Amino acid sequence: MAISLSKTFLSITHQVFPSEKCRPVSFSGREPQLQRATSMGFATRSLRVPRVSSKTSGSLSSSIDELDKETREERRVADVWREIHGVDDWVGMLDPMDPLLRSELIRYGEMAQACYDAFDFDPFSKYCGSCRFTPRQFFDSLAMADHGYVVSRYIFATSNINLPNFFKKSRWPKVWSKSANWIGYVAVSNDEISKRLGRRDIVVAWRGTVTRLEWIADLMDFLKPISSNKIPCPDSTVKVESGFLDLYTDKDVNCRFCKFSAREQILTEVKRLLEIYQLEELSLTITGHSLGSALAILSAYDIVETGLNVLQDSRAVPVSVFSFSGPRVGNVRFKERMEVLGVKVLRVVNVHDIVPKSPGLFFNENVSPLLMKMAERLPWSYSHVGVELSLDHINSPFLKETGDLSCAHNLEALLHLLDGYHGKGHRFVLASGRDPALVNKASDFLKDHYLVPPYWRQYENKGMVRNEDGRWMQPERPKLDDHPEDTHRYLKQLGLASHH
Amino acid sequence: MAISLSKTFLSITHQVFPSEKCRPVSFSGREPQLQRATSMGFATRSLRVPRVSSKTSGSLSSSIDELDKETREERRVADVWREIHGVDDWVGMLDPMDPLLRSELIRYGEMAQACYDAFDFDPFSKYCGSCRFTPRQFFDSLAMADHGYVVSRYIFATSNINLPNFFKKSRWPKVWSKSANWIGYVAVSNDEISKRLGRRDIVVAWRGTVTRLEWIADLMDFLKPISSNKIPCPDSTVKVESGFLDLYTDKDVNCRFCKFSAREQILTEVKRLLEIYQLEELSLTITGHSLGSALAILSAYDIVETGLNVLQDSRAVPVSVFSFSGPRVGNVRFKERMEVLGVKVLRVVNVHDIVPKSPGLFFNENVSPLLMKMAERLPWSYSHVGVELSLDHINSPFLKETGDLSCAHNLEALLHLLDGYHGKGHRFVLASGRDPALVNKASDFLKDHYLVPPYWRQYENKGMVRNEDGRWMQPERPKLDDHPEDTHRYLKQLGLASHH
Repeated sequence: MAISLSKTFLSITHQVFPSEKCRPVSFSGREPQLQRATSMGFATRSLRVPRVSSKTSGSLSSSIDELDKETREERRVADVWREIHGVDDWVGMLDPMDPLLRSELIRYGEMAQACYDAFDFDPFSKYCGSCRFTPRQFFDSLAMADHGYVVSRYIFATSNINLPNFFKKSRWPKVWSKSANWIGYVAVSNDEISKRLGRRDIVVAWRGTVTRLEWIADLMDFLKPISSNKIPCPDSTVKVESGFLDLYTDKDVNCRFCKFSAREQILTEVKRLLEIYQLEELSLTITGHSLGSALAILSAYDIVETGLNVLQDSRAVPVSVFSFSGPRVGNVRFKERMEVLGVKVLRVVNVHDIVPKSPGLFFNENVSPLLMKMAERLPWSYSHVGVELSLDHINSPFLKETGDLSCAHNLEALLHLLDGYHGKGHRFVLASGRDPALVNKASDFLKDHYLVPPYWRQYENKGMVRNEDGRWMQPERPKLDDHPEDTHRYLKQLGLASHH
Repeated sequence: MAISLSKTFLSITHQVFPSEKCRPVSFSGREPQLQRATSMGFATRSLRVPRVSSKTSGSLSSSIDELDKETREERRVADVWREIHGVDDWVGMLDPMDPLLRSELIRYGEMAQACYDAFDFDPFSKYCGSCRFTPRQFFDSLAMADHGYVVSRYIFATSNINLPNFFKKSRWPKVWSKSANWIGYVAVSNDEISKRLGRRDIVVAWRGTVTRLEWIADLMDFLKPISSNKIPCPDSTVKVESGFLDLYTDKDVNCRFCKFSAREQILTEVKRLLEIYQLEELSLTITGHSLGSALAILSAYDIVETGLNVLQDSRAVPVSVFSFSGPRVGNVRFKERMEVLGVKVLRVVNVHDIVPKSPGLFFNENVSPLLMKMAERLPWSYSHVGVELSLDHINSPFLKETGDLSCAHNLEALLHLLDGYHGKGHRFVLASGRDPALVNKASDFLKDHYLVPPYWRQYENKGMVRNEDGRWMQPERPKLDDHPEDTHRYLKQLGLASHH
């Protein structure tokens, strides 16, 4: 026997609001679900199952109708993946929300979330700043085997840059690396999921910061020509935030893990994978949350600007970014250059999150065109790129009011909002029944009466285990692989070998 | 491969203090250990193993000699258990510290610690305030099977008394009990360990508060005749702190778990066990930490005052209390009555702990006899009972200076101090090699350079697990047993049935 959130909600509502009209509704073959008079819903996972008995309230049946309509279409991702990938700039897909786009967004968001779930944040861990799992076991360890991807490479960045609050350092004097932090991964869809997706999908996922927002203060609010860090750009007025740029391009020749910059790692790996799969239909999907979104946008730009996505037969592999809670990255020239290059960016944000309002609180794309024109020469005028899908956590009946700014920035909460979003003014109805308990994984955002422990994601005994002598200690992890041997060869092919 | 604290210390010392003289010493068949010039040591678990190579520093060999001498004696607990149990009031056993007494104290202390390790503190748990494990699986779940005891009964107390900061309440509206808290257990030694101990040992372990000291403020500083709560006492001037007394005697007839008072539960269970084992050599050992120490002393008094420990053949089962970090319980009359009854109490305290200084900060056994005589009639003059073994955490080189008062009150830290204690002025040398990492289980007390995470004892995902639908939820626990059927019968035999 087990108590799930839905059951909990049921019993809690009965007890906490005994005077309110509560109608438990029996879903076929499922636990009883509850529909309150407020704008909320809770659907089950499979979209094929008839969902509700005939005796439902008007508001519930309308939400069920909506889901059924979605189901009836039975469109396949393989048929519409270019639209989902933004070929038409997602026109007509966001309001009302396209159900396939929504589930694809959640899928990619979960691949960004995986960066947090796998990251070792504990300063008392010898492996602080690394990924807890080997690349081979990555998705299995996170119970994400059904995502159907295989990690092909981990990406590391040097912390010797001016973002002190972003990097995590172990308290141990001798650690896996003095200056490297694990910052993301490259993964490829397996045969089975590639068939479902209609193409071989290469994913780059960048890690951000999960709860702390201090790194925003580290941003120097200083735009720098993208070409100044040796990223090709025909226009020196195309500028990006210098902290993001440094994070992407800096390296530490003395460090085993960041002797190549994140940029070099990503470009060589993407090149290698495109070679391997060049005869297939391909897509490049780059995702990231928070600061990871900035890196996603920057790397997507880089890949297209360098022409890396153009195959030998001149086919251009479409490059898209699914960005979550991302800050502004560059100036309006950068935005325009992204559009010229055809890099598609869909930015999912919570309207209450301050990060997408940073940097550039004073001069950004929201000021009048005339003022913006005047401000463009200022070093601190920023512009968002791509298309925004803005959600509002007030609409979720599962979430409580909170003064904690990190809640509105939380990725799990954003994925929860996505799951309940059907379009502007539409009722919040969970489309997939994605477990709302996930919201509290690393936050205190669910209403208290759901009784999901806040910040519940934690490791048993902080990873301490007893050895054969009965002593408590931190186990060693498998030695991390070096960067692939062929990185140098690919760097040469990319014309980047001279950097060494 | 694994890093244990000893190895860590080795490498840390080399790196953090490169200029200091460090001599790694090779223990036969063990990891290399380190002895610094400061007064510290670190011995291994088995006392029979030759411990050190011939090339040791003077200070280390002296500490080893001491351990060897202890080993050579090869006394058996069975031969001296009455002395360990306090028949001679531990005269000559505390300075220098008797090694068998020390290891027995640690063993009982660990049985008190088990109350914390098993207690569900999480207000988001439906089972907050209960024991996480069934009585049958108690010691196995805590990896304490080698202690050789079997839990025979859990003890519950009602929280409907005036100690709001002691009791834990779940946030759930429907919980396992509205008013009960698990407060300890009764256990019996199994055949194997009984043979080693020289008698069948019945243990009562009382739970206290693990880190929070707020409950001290709840003490009403009000002494009340022990007979006023219907505990027999020939002298109405024998008084104890009213909060402790209420906790011990109060009940809630509407609650499944505390319809019997803690007193009734303990007396009936002890009576039942003494009947079962009446033909054997027997001992009653009562232990507890903090507030649990007060309950230990009170229940020990009660058992002897009611004559419960006198068997049908008129043999009196010796009753002893091993108290850890306990507050004062009653007035000087109570102390005298304990002495008359022959209840032996050994109180282990850390001199920096404020709890043993409470209540009675102004009038206690430390004031001059004349002043004490004058103060005796005041309601707030308290006196410690029994024999004190006072330790000082300054002496442990593993512990750091801290302003956190709860560190000096921590039971794991106290057991660590016991393990290193050999007598007043003797160097701190861990006798059993008891893992110092345990100190940080629920505190931040170990020096940072040992890199043991503070407060490391925690449950994976706060006990949340995924059910078959992939939803995260709190699993149900096995239903708790009711109190034994024969409780009423034993109450009648004890002349307590009229309380119902």
